[in-house]
Amino acid sequence: MGAMTLQPATPAFLDSLRDRLPPSAFREAEERHLSEPRGRFRGTGLLLAPGSTEEVAAILRACFDARVPVVPHSGGTGLVGGQVMAEGPAPVILSLARMDRVRAVHPSESVLVAEAGVILADVHREAERAGRMFPLSLASEGSARIGGLLATNAGGTAVLRHGNARALCLGVEAVTAQGEVWHGLTRLRKDNAGYDLRDLLIGSEGTLGVITAAALRLVQPPSRVGVALLAVPSPAVALELLALAQGRYGDTVQGFELMGRMGFVFLAETGLGASPLSPVPDWTVLVELGLPEGLEPQAALERIFEEGMERGLVTDGVLAASEAQATALWELRERIPEANRKIGAVSSHDISLPLSEIPAFIPEAEAALARLGPFRVNCFGHLGDGNLHFNVFPPSGVARAEFDPVRGRVKELVHDLVHARGGSVAAEHGVGRLKVGDLERYGDPVKLSMMRAVKQALDPRGILNPGAVLRAQGNRP
Amino acid sequence: MGAMTLQPATPAFLDSLRDRLPPSAFREAEERHLSEPRGRFRGTGLLLAPGSTEEVAAILRACFDARVPVVPHSGGTGLVGGQVMAEGPAPVILSLARMDRVRAVHPSESVLVAEAGVILADVHREAERAGRMFPLSLASEGSARIGGLLATNAGGTAVLRHGNARALCLGVEAVTAQGEVWHGLTRLRKDNAGYDLRDLLIGSEGTLGVITAAALRLVQPPSRVGVALLAVPSPAVALELLALAQGRYGDTVQGFELMGRMGFVFLAETGLGASPLSPVPDWTVLVELGLPEGLEPQAALERIFEEGMERGLVTDGVLAASEAQATALWELRERIPEANRKIGAVSSHDISLPLSEIPAFIPEAEAALARLGPFRVNCFGHLGDGNLHFNVFPPSGVARAEFDPVRGRVKELVHDLVHARGGSVAAEHGVGRLKVGDLERYGDPVKLSMMRAVKQALDPRGILNPGAVLRAQGNRP
Repeated sequence: MGAMTLQPATPAFLDSLRDRLPPSAFREAEERHLSEPRGRFRGTGLLLAPGSTEEVAAILRACFDARVPVVPHSGGTGLVGGQVMAEGPAPVILSLARMDRVRAVHPSESVLVAEAGVILADVHREAERAGRMFPLSLASEGSARIGGLLATNAGGTAVLRHGNARALCLGVEAVTAQGEVWHGLTRLRKDNAGYDLRDLLIGSEGTLGVITAAALRLVQPPSRVGVALLAVPSPAVALELLALAQGRYGDTVQGFELMGRMGFVFLAETGLGASPLSPVPDWTVLVELGLPEGLEPQAALERIFEEGMERGLVTDGVLAASEAQATALWELRERIPEANRKIGAVSSHDISLPLSEIPAFIPEAEAALARLGPFRVNCFGHLGDGNLHFNVFPPSGVARAEFDPVRGRVKELVHDLVHARGGSVAAEHGVGRLKVGDLERYGDPVKLSMMRAVKQALDPRGILNPGAVLRAQGNRP
Repeated sequence: MGAMTLQPATPAFLDSLRDRLPPSAFREAEERHLSEPRGRFRGTGLLLAPGSTEEVAAILRACFDARVPVVPHSGGTGLVGGQVMAEGPAPVILSLARMDRVRAVHPSESVLVAEAGVILADVHREAERAGRMFPLSLASEGSARIGGLLATNAGGTAVLRHGNARALCLGVEAVTAQGEVWHGLTRLRKDNAGYDLRDLLIGSEGTLGVITAAALRLVQPPSRVGVALLAVPSPAVALELLALAQGRYGDTVQGFELMGRMGFVFLAETGLGASPLSPVPDWTVLVELGLPEGLEPQAALERIFEEGMERGLVTDGVLAASEAQATALWELRERIPEANRKIGAVSSHDISLPLSEIPAFIPEAEAALARLGPFRVNCFGHLGDGNLHFNVFPPSGVARAEFDPVRGRVKELVHDLVHARGGSVAAEHGVGRLKVGDLERYGDPVKLSMMRAVKQALDPRGILNPGAVLRAQGNRP
């Protein structure tokens, strides 16, 4: 049975690869390869940093033969521990960071082909240079890389209009567990030639294959963009306002972010920002319109504002009169995660709900938490997608460590309520290692057994990111 | 080994199900269950028409135990023979037509939950009743059913803006080969809890599981819709015009259909329609805008028209001045497939290409065909998606049977040229039984072996639609 178990990556194993890999592929693992942003997991492993798809394939062939686990590592910004292997034999940490070439830009097709290691902000820049836009946008775009963004099917603030990372990918090049290269870098918008393995790899968090490059869908930037921060009486009303805005302006409504009062309290407490509305409203939404030619953002937002006021959907608001003001409004929203980190959460929850369940869920969860302790809840997020970050904090002046004993109970309470309403407890950050138990608890058992069958089929020795998404099976054939 | 092979569905086998299924599930197979629209394949089998998901599961459990093949049957409108099993032991033809309930409409979420047997036109109607729109639109919408539309990831005329069927589905309920029910009818817009098996089943043509219901994404209808038929000098210029239109009006450009002169010749020849432009242009595009409030379709189309004229992109055109005129323009486009059927194609090709490859492909393929015979080519389709129907016909007055000897050569020639330019030979109709050989010839070998592994994992006895997408493996474990 010994030969059947996974084997640790050792210096001798790495040495055995020196005939197949250039010296540049051998690097010391750094702190950032062994840790993750929230400090919940600490990894082990030896680093390899291939510079090409062929080198990735050579590494995987060797790991497959020797049954050595492989943890793909991209920008390292994931929040669920998918990028660090904390248990089991030491893995090869497969950094894609050196594969950072934009291979091609096709402006007339609105397509850009990027390797897995390209940083999101660089994709934005290259797209802009071609008169196009890559509409994936999130707080970590300065360090997150395409490979990880696809592996986790990243979301962000433009999903309402443009979809998750999955919707922005036309084709992938990927290496299998056996070290074979799937050349699937198609630039086609329609292709029904066989199973949708592209979308299967996307979001599989490196457990079914390693994406080495992707053909990404660009869009024409909207002629004019307008931003407003509107105060609304409640999340229920915020959804009515969304329907009003979409009824008039369709999917030109490209951002619809909810922020609770606590978000502004935290921004003030941490010195990161201040509400432009006073008194700070209980709930605000940040609305962004990306309009076609012929429509004035200011006029369109005023129309939403005025009709919202008339119908009691909006109680206050500020319309950005310049790009600088628009940026400033967005910065408030984008600094909330940073404020959260400074305050220090007892428990964070990346949840999604059917839209109509949101209004009842929020007070229900807050009331249930109040029975557990004097928590502060910062609820914010992508309301238009039904995706909230429902994060639980200690009261002002109390260390979060005091709540260590109830942290598990807090999480379970929130997740149970989400599940009861048909929601997901892994909405946009993925499962990683943090939510393997949640998936087992809440996931459909038939889907789970299908997932295990697919994992076994595509990674028969279980070397790819063991313990992420699905519990490691220990011994494999 | 005998026990390992698939067994035919016999009257005795069906009788053995009478204790588990109501009498209503037992029906005689009709002609439409054994044939398909283009008459290329003729099926066999015994019909079962379950009325519920539980009945579907009971049938699949029995078929799995007895190793009896199952061919799911929905609207029967597929064009690649995926719905009829022509070879091997007689299957159970599993009609989903009786599962025709719209289970729920959630207007505030823009979601509709439909069973697999609901006809597309009925989904349209129900969505409209709720003040919403289901943006999947294709010629066979009066008979195509949701199950088949998802199984084939159907395309149609609104893909440019709204995507294929896959992009319009939030969740599925499905029955596995073993007869287990995956309750995946989520109404969530974001859910990264595990592998994307939804998108894997969608487009798998009934070979990995049977979709019994789906949560569908509705949209708010645009405030105003405008339609124009514009003459363009060439497909290359048509793509420039598309870029111009999208640059000004973004993804409010919701239809961009190319029609060649031959399309209008065929409409005239078959008495199905006449070009409103005279002389009939070599190339025309049907442009549809779905505009937000505040924009006049007429003015927006005039703007595209005028700037197109100035830049030499447009040479003539007609703008619909009323809904009736818009409908009449669309009817021209939608009657082309009917005209094609009346003329009778030597070979039809459902291809997609990277957008920038289209202009060179069309004359290249036409020239190559001309060397093979005096064919007439009707090239039309969803230019914005890079998806063309490149169909080859006999000259006027010649029976297509005369070209039977070169039919295979015609197809191979067209498909080889498509493949050489990075295109797909199964763009929106799927693989079915018609293109299994094409997939083997043109598909990436690593992807194909991954597909076979997934098929083996989810359908270990090979009972689900054997011979569709992948060649039947004969004996299974």
